[in-house]
Amino acid sequence: MVNDFVMGIDIGGTNTVYGFINRKGEIIYYDQIPTNGDKPIYNLLNRLEKHLNDFLDANSTKNLKGIGIGAPNGNYYTGNIESPPNLNWGTISIKSILEKKFASQVLLTNDANAAAIGEKSYGAAKKMNDFVMITLGTGLGSGIYANNRLIYGYDGFAGEMGHIVVENDGRRCNCGNKGCLESYVSANGINKTIDQMMIKYPESNLLRKLRNRKEAGKILDMAYDENHKIAIKIYSYTGKMLGRGLSNVATLLSPEAFIFYGGYSNAGSRIFDYAEQEMNKNLLEGQKGKIKIIRSKLLDGQAGVLGAASLIWSHER
Amino acid sequence: MVNDFVMGIDIGGTNTVYGFINRKGEIIYYDQIPTNGDKPIYNLLNRLEKHLNDFLDANSTKNLKGIGIGAPNGNYYTGNIESPPNLNWGTISIKSILEKKFASQVLLTNDANAAAIGEKSYGAAKKMNDFVMITLGTGLGSGIYANNRLIYGYDGFAGEMGHIVVENDGRRCNCGNKGCLESYVSANGINKTIDQMMIKYPESNLLRKLRNRKEAGKILDMAYDENHKIAIKIYSYTGKMLGRGLSNVATLLSPEAFIFYGGYSNAGSRIFDYAEQEMNKNLLEGQKGKIKIIRSKLLDGQAGVLGAASLIWSHER
Repeated sequence: MVNDFVMGIDIGGTNTVYGFINRKGEIIYYDQIPTNGDKPIYNLLNRLEKHLNDFLDANSTKNLKGIGIGAPNGNYYTGNIESPPNLNWGTISIKSILEKKFASQVLLTNDANAAAIGEKSYGAAKKMNDFVMITLGTGLGSGIYANNRLIYGYDGFAGEMGHIVVENDGRRCNCGNKGCLESYVSANGINKTIDQMMIKYPESNLLRKLRNRKEAGKILDMAYDENHKIAIKIYSYTGKMLGRGLSNVATLLSPEAFIFYGGYSNAGSRIFDYAEQEMNKNLLEGQKGKIKIIRSKLLDGQAGVLGAASLIWSHER
Repeated sequence: MVNDFVMGIDIGGTNTVYGFINRKGEIIYYDQIPTNGDKPIYNLLNRLEKHLNDFLDANSTKNLKGIGIGAPNGNYYTGNIESPPNLNWGTISIKSILEKKFASQVLLTNDANAAAIGEKSYGAAKKMNDFVMITLGTGLGSGIYANNRLIYGYDGFAGEMGHIVVENDGRRCNCGNKGCLESYVSANGINKTIDQMMIKYPESNLLRKLRNRKEAGKILDMAYDENHKIAIKIYSYTGKMLGRGLSNVATLLSPEAFIFYGGYSNAGSRIFDYAEQEMNKNLLEGQKGKIKIIRSKLLDGQAGVLGAASLIWSHER
């Protein structure tokens, strides 16, 4: 029993975090590898299998209790990853594939739901019954707690906040629709904003630097802190669009807080101050100024694997 | 025990329904009276008191078990009606006022929540765990069930779907904001659409008839059924705006169904067909065509009083 551990896997549009977590929710080891979403899913699964086997070889007394997975479009009810917009996998019955591979219990949920469960179990949401976790990665995901329970909806697909429309007939989203929140507020969305700015300001040195997109967040943060006009335009626009989404969700659900996690959440108040202002502008009188906007209290990348692992630990109880 | 009854009160922007309901959820008597929201709330409360006393006088063996109330901006947690946009009452501590008046248990919730509870207890949602009840009255209210429980949110104000924004910088809403769903889809909203049409088609006989707004819904239904161009414009526009709201809510919550109740819900497919089309256009691929749009299975005006009464009966268990 004390040697039991769970493998938590948090599959993202760009990177996948995996970790080995004990019953107390302590991360024994964790690491990040590229998702390679343009290759077949077995490319990722084979690498994860190797990391798990390496861990088991090095820790021969330890016993694999189960595998918890958070993935874009991961469906808790079906155990399938169902055609995620930012990964070229189609529909994958990952639960049954891994159950056969490892003869172990496997539970799947949406990546943002996994982060929400992690935050609820170990992070900023420990004492909250009603909150919305928002993951700002390649796309924008969300996990919703109401009445102290995660909302799955009728078919397991609740929480797709990235695809609520914030601009009618707006930008084309990877999902095929137009004006989705994710097409403005996410790494993909901010890249689109950068593209638009490049047309408007072709001479800008900052925008030239942002062409190397890998470090775009850090470069933008620094430029913003130096009051760079274009960086301020990019973040204020991103924040305004985010605020539109937050106010609609808050009007429906009255959460105690929105909790942010993932890449661009590190921009912090540089985006959130604008979002909060726009959100409060649109809220009903009685709600203005009440809803907190905070960042995950867990280390970078940990909420997802902890939450994925929690699926197994909490299922066991 | 068999003589116990509950008074259910459903306060609407225009009319208030009250009823006397037994433990089995049977309505012994119910009636509708004007709310008179432009007068102080005591005008309504005194009339309700008289109806209750008349009922008690005529049924001397019956015993008042409690009073359940659904009201716009009714807050379950505080027992207050908090500045409803369509009624000039400010904030009213109705729970404590009525508890003193009748020495009886009083429970309050939002009017749309009351309708949702009624539908869940006795109507179309009996077997649903995840659905959204939408009341189309003077305004647009909503009550949300997820995981088989009503969503109150952190402060008791969840479910204000009428105030999600469906058109940025759109129509001014009674709440003070712009572009709220309610300012397009509700009696008030449709009146605004009629006003706009009157500017465009000043010679229209239909629009002239609609000036007597009391029967506007029935007149519009008939004109629509006769393929009247302007009636089709009004309902298709209303449906389209409704569909925008539905798709955003469905993307977040993945309900089994949207259930409609109240005045304009009687227009039925005349509005809902357009709403369904627009909703499905905006939904993620996997959700298109899955979410039902139906009407309350309870008689006109009954979901609200039944739900309000259920507050007391279910609280007792």
